[in-house]
Amino acid sequence: MSSGPIVVINPNSNEAVTSGLDDALAAFRFASGPGIECLTLAEGPFGIESQLHSDQVVVPLVRLVERRPDASAFVIACYSDPGIDACRSIAKVPVFGIQESGMLTALARGDRVGIIAIAEASVARHRRYMRRMGLGDRVVTELPLNMSVDETARGNRTFERLVEVGGQLVGRGADAIVLGCAGMARHRQPLEDKLGVPVIDPTQAAVAMAMGVVLSAG
Amino acid sequence: MSSGPIVVINPNSNEAVTSGLDDALAAFRFASGPGIECLTLAEGPFGIESQLHSDQVVVPLVRLVERRPDASAFVIACYSDPGIDACRSIAKVPVFGIQESGMLTALARGDRVGIIAIAEASVARHRRYMRRMGLGDRVVTELPLNMSVDETARGNRTFERLVEVGGQLVGRGADAIVLGCAGMARHRQPLEDKLGVPVIDPTQAAVAMAMGVVLSAG
Amino acid sequence: MSSGPIVVINPNSNEAVTSGLDDALAAFRFASGPGIECLTLAEGPFGIESQLHSDQVVVPLVRLVERRPDASAFVIACYSDPGIDACRSIAKVPVFGIQESGMLTALARGDRVGIIAIAEASVARHRRYMRRMGLGDRVVTELPLNMSVDETARGNRTFERLVEVGGQLVGRGADAIVLGCAGMARHRQPLEDKLGVPVIDPTQAAVAMAMGVVLSAG
Amino acid sequence: MSSGPIVVINPNSNEAVTSGLDDALAAFRFASGPGIECLTLAEGPFGIESQLHSDQVVVPLVRLVERRPDASAFVIACYSDPGIDACRSIAKVPVFGIQESGMLTALARGDRVGIIAIAEASVARHRRYMRRMGLGDRVVTELPLNMSVDETARGNRTFERLVEVGGQLVGRGADAIVLGCAGMARHRQPLEDKLGVPVIDPTQAAVAMAMGVVLSAG
Amino acid sequence: MSSGPIVVINPNSNEAVTSGLDDALAAFRFASGPGIECLTLAEGPFGIESQLHSDQVVVPLVRLVERRPDASAFVIACYSDPGIDACRSIAKVPVFGIQESGMLTALARGDRVGIIAIAEASVARHRRYMRRMGLGDRVVTELPLNMSVDETARGNRTFERLVEVGGQLVGRGADAIVLGCAGMARHRQPLEDKLGVPVIDPTQAAVAMAMGVVLSAG
Amino acid sequence: MSSGPIVVINPNSNEAVTSGLDDALAAFRFASGPGIECLTLAEGPFGIESQLHSDQVVVPLVRLVERRPDASAFVIACYSDPGIDACRSIAKVPVFGIQESGMLTALARGDRVGIIAIAEASVARHRRYMRRMGLGDRVVTELPLNMSVDETARGNRTFERLVEVGGQLVGRGADAIVLGCAGMARHRQPLEDKLGVPVIDPTQAAVAMAMGVVLSAG
Repeated sequence: MSSGPIVVINPNSNEAVTSGLDDALAAFRFASGPGIECLTLAEGPFGIESQLHSDQVVVPLVRLVERRPDASAFVIACYSDPGIDACRSIAKVPVFGIQESGMLTALARGDRVGIIAIAEASVARHRRYMRRMGLGDRVVTELPLNMSVDETARGNRTFERLVEVGGQLVGRGADAIVLGCAGMARHRQPLEDKLGVPVIDPTQAAVAMAMGVVLSAG
Repeated sequence: MSSGPIVVINPNSNEAVTSGLDDALAAFRFASGPGIECLTLAEGPFGIESQLHSDQVVVPLVRLVERRPDASAFVIACYSDPGIDACRSIAKVPVFGIQESGMLTALARGDRVGIIAIAEASVARHRRYMRRMGLGDRVVTELPLNMSVDETARGNRTFERLVEVGGQLVGRGADAIVLGCAGMARHRQPLEDKLGVPVIDPTQAAVAMAMGVVLSAG
Repeated sequence: MSSGPIVVINPNSNEAVTSGLDDALAAFRFASGPGIECLTLAEGPFGIESQLHSDQVVVPLVRLVERRPDASAFVIACYSDPGIDACRSIAKVPVFGIQESGMLTALARGDRVGIIAIAEASVARHRRYMRRMGLGDRVVTELPLNMSVDETARGNRTFERLVEVGGQLVGRGADAIVLGCAGMARHRQPLEDKLGVPVIDPTQAAVAMAMGVVLSAG
Repeated sequence: MSSGPIVVINPNSNEAVTSGLDDALAAFRFASGPGIECLTLAEGPFGIESQLHSDQVVVPLVRLVERRPDASAFVIACYSDPGIDACRSIAKVPVFGIQESGMLTALARGDRVGIIAIAEASVARHRRYMRRMGLGDRVVTELPLNMSVDETARGNRTFERLVEVGGQLVGRGADAIVLGCAGMARHRQPLEDKLGVPVIDPTQAAVAMAMGVVLSAG
Repeated sequence: MSSGPIVVINPNSNEAVTSGLDDALAAFRFASGPGIECLTLAEGPFGIESQLHSDQVVVPLVRLVERRPDASAFVIACYSDPGIDACRSIAKVPVFGIQESGMLTALARGDRVGIIAIAEASVARHRRYMRRMGLGDRVVTELPLNMSVDETARGNRTFERLVEVGGQLVGRGADAIVLGCAGMARHRQPLEDKLGVPVIDPTQAAVAMAMGVVLSAG
Repeated sequence: MSSGPIVVINPNSNEAVTSGLDDALAAFRFASGPGIECLTLAEGPFGIESQLHSDQVVVPLVRLVERRPDASAFVIACYSDPGIDACRSIAKVPVFGIQESGMLTALARGDRVGIIAIAEASVARHRRYMRRMGLGDRVVTELPLNMSVDETARGNRTFERLVEVGGQLVGRGADAIVLGCAGMARHRQPLEDKLGVPVIDPTQAAVAMAMGVVLSAG
């Protein structure tokens, strides 16, 4: 297995999101540990907010993966896990999707998982993907913030809405919560403190799994 | 969340196993990273080879967890995940079982998982536990080496048997393999090289998840 | 198969509970039928109200089973089915857990089963166990009375709460109800009359199954 | 609940089968216990060997149930559980089907159940019914003897075939076996002794459940 | 495969229902296409409103199927799919049930299906049948109009109730709706226009599948 | 709903495949019936034989769908159902995928479905997609011919292999077979005659469903 960096790809072209990923992963970097490199997919749309956005980044993602034979693992940092099958089919190293990693990690933290989506439109897409994962019995439901990605990035109302929607999920029986978006890591700890149940940032979950693979190859 | 060590507990009293865990986790330790401390449960049997062995360590495990309020996370390093519910019910920090973590991690590496058990006797116990996890659709099956823990620890035939049984699992459709035992980490990489599919050591998987939680708490 | 008694074990040390079991099983005793013997586990806590309580009785239960080679079957009369795997692994005769027997019997009485728990704390434990049984599709949900075992034993409000909670389960679609506790048998018939759907006392269900085995052995 | 007899209905018109049921249930009768009455459905075919046979007995079964308002419970003693929904829809007392009761009882005796059918033709019918029960995860498979009902009733080769087919089911992982026919009770104990796993006669299982209901109504 | 007509059987004896089927299928008839013949089962009850009604038509349905060896396919046009197994067991050509065809077709139109039943009494019967189909994960729920078949046939309140109940299903997450009755086809398009999600008439769905088979046999 | 044609898109650029689709659908065309137009996706690869092939046609497929606002329905005629979610998200009319339609139609023809793939490589992709459909309980398995698309198109060994692999599926319990490829329609009837169980051509199944929608819109 390569001793190169874990390459985390933001499949949208918004550099602010990439830089947020960098912040969220700061604690995962060690002097002698595996490198963690966050990249922006230049060809991506400014935000991935529809099925078509998700599908149109697949080929560019594959090309980017091909250009990095030095990577020890890849993380696709968009909650729709775009291109995960295609990237896996051509990569020589493990590829992690943040929805998959986030959900699997949540299952080690609670018995029934609730997910907070940004927008209603992505809920059905995520549900189909979770059914494919075969995890249906342990999912409470996914509820949307009903905000635009832009609003969540800037607005001070975001945390308020996270508490509201997270509280609804807990009320319906969720004992672990996944943030269904790549750009919410800064709210993870405060939301966990507020709700009293584990809150999982999916990018951190994916990078932890990637580190596990890289270090196991030690 | 505590900034103390990740405490990995070997619930049997065989110090050689604990020292094997320490070796398997060497690469997971960084100067500025979370400490990883491997402990032996003095009250445990020499090996956990039956349902009763698994049940009798629960109360001592809980007592050990209670004595370590400084821990940032616990890992129970026996593939039966003994006492996981009881330890979770009293711990203030996350508790990981290696079967649960190993299986969940495998689901991010392949579509259908096969498990290699040491002994036939544990297969049914593990199957009940996997059904409880709700992962049945993605498990191919679990096959035993039919060796004693002692034999596997010493014998040079162990790797040969791992290749045989792992090959049978791949032949039945498994595209990821979990080592169903805490003491096989040294065979992980060679077996992966031989079989051509990812092989997961469950203790490394659990520690990676635990690191993810600790580092996310930043 | 032994012609000895069916041994019903109350795993808590409250003799009043054991004597309630005796009453609930009075009608199951016949001059020429199998004996039914209700025992108290002296080593048990006064009530089993937590995961740890449930786990700490396993080893004493196994020892008690070992001391009764004359039994023709065992029934573990606590709704968490503590020690069922360990007792089965050492007993030469069938071992029934009352949650398992109660749920399976309910599935022959209705299409979708609701369960009344004493306390919120046990709901998640029971849900994991039901998932392990593989019965999820036919379970409506489990709702707690939110009373202490002590209150339910004495209080005249118990029946009132059973009607309330049972009515909620019927309202959500349950057409059979299981009493999720060993000490509610006296309320079974009145609750069934009130709710208009079958109500199952799990200890009676388990003893009926045990009698079936003993009588089948002719 | 009525204090009348448990009425066991053989839906075929072969009196020899009814008399075999009477023998199989001899041990379930007590001086002061509930009566157990075995009846032959005069309008039934000589054997129920096809879907049409199974469907054509439904209306006569309902009429018979209507003629017995004194019954405390009914058992439909054909492994296809013909008319179970219709009989339940008009009976004031519980109605048990032997397939349903046999399968549910087996789930309290083993983790994975295998079923021995008489003829290949009924295997698909039973599988659809088991899927409806929601028990699929715990069923190994059903294998046929490939004998006619007549042959199984007379032939001395029947036990030999039961051992063969039962052994195949155990070989595939079954740790409990259900006899998929109303007329095999005399082979239950010898087959259990031979195979070393519990063998369930479904009529005995259904009558045990029916007794449980009647005695609980005490 | 026969080049004869697709025979659509209304298993109740209400000619008005049969004539409604004829209307609903008008657009499916082409000069050179397969014939579509709608028949009334003279022996049927005036409406199929209970389990017993559903069971009592099975034998007459089989006899009718036997009298039409010229048919190229059969459609049983009652939402309980009465006699589907028996008819399939004797027919030489495909037999479609409208519940089965309606549900399967709905799964190609939406991710989660809701069903509108006429009466509460049939909801449980349909749920057991859907569980047997193995489609549970994709069913939202089935809600009744709580009207008699007669009322729905005449009343001008029918459409109003369809909109109400359909709206509740959409509110609970259904993105495709099945009309759980053979006599609602005239409301299909208006209801779809009103609700904004696909609405499936099950008889049209079954005839489309039947045409597919007939035309494939070219 | 539009009265325009049903547009069947071959997402590869091999005109011979498109012309084969035209032949397979000849019987579905009527003078007064809906038009059926088969198109080649010029931007597609010559054959879709990998995950990346499947993903790279999504955007061109969406563009083609956008260029045909006159269509009354779309059928994506590649067994991987590429772009089905994206096309549905932008189309105003129903979009059918042939894998989805083929599987759903097969479930109305048999109880347990087997699938014949061209190449081993697509089996895992199809399995993930079937899991997402939620149909796992009724799938026997998918087995590959292990031929190239080219070989299957020309070779006279194709039918021989179909009989071999189809026979293996029947031997494992399949009572309906789906041809897992858009270009096998000419073998459907001969294979059905040979195997004695229904064989479904998925494009014909999808077009039948599409016709049902168009004709229902009257």
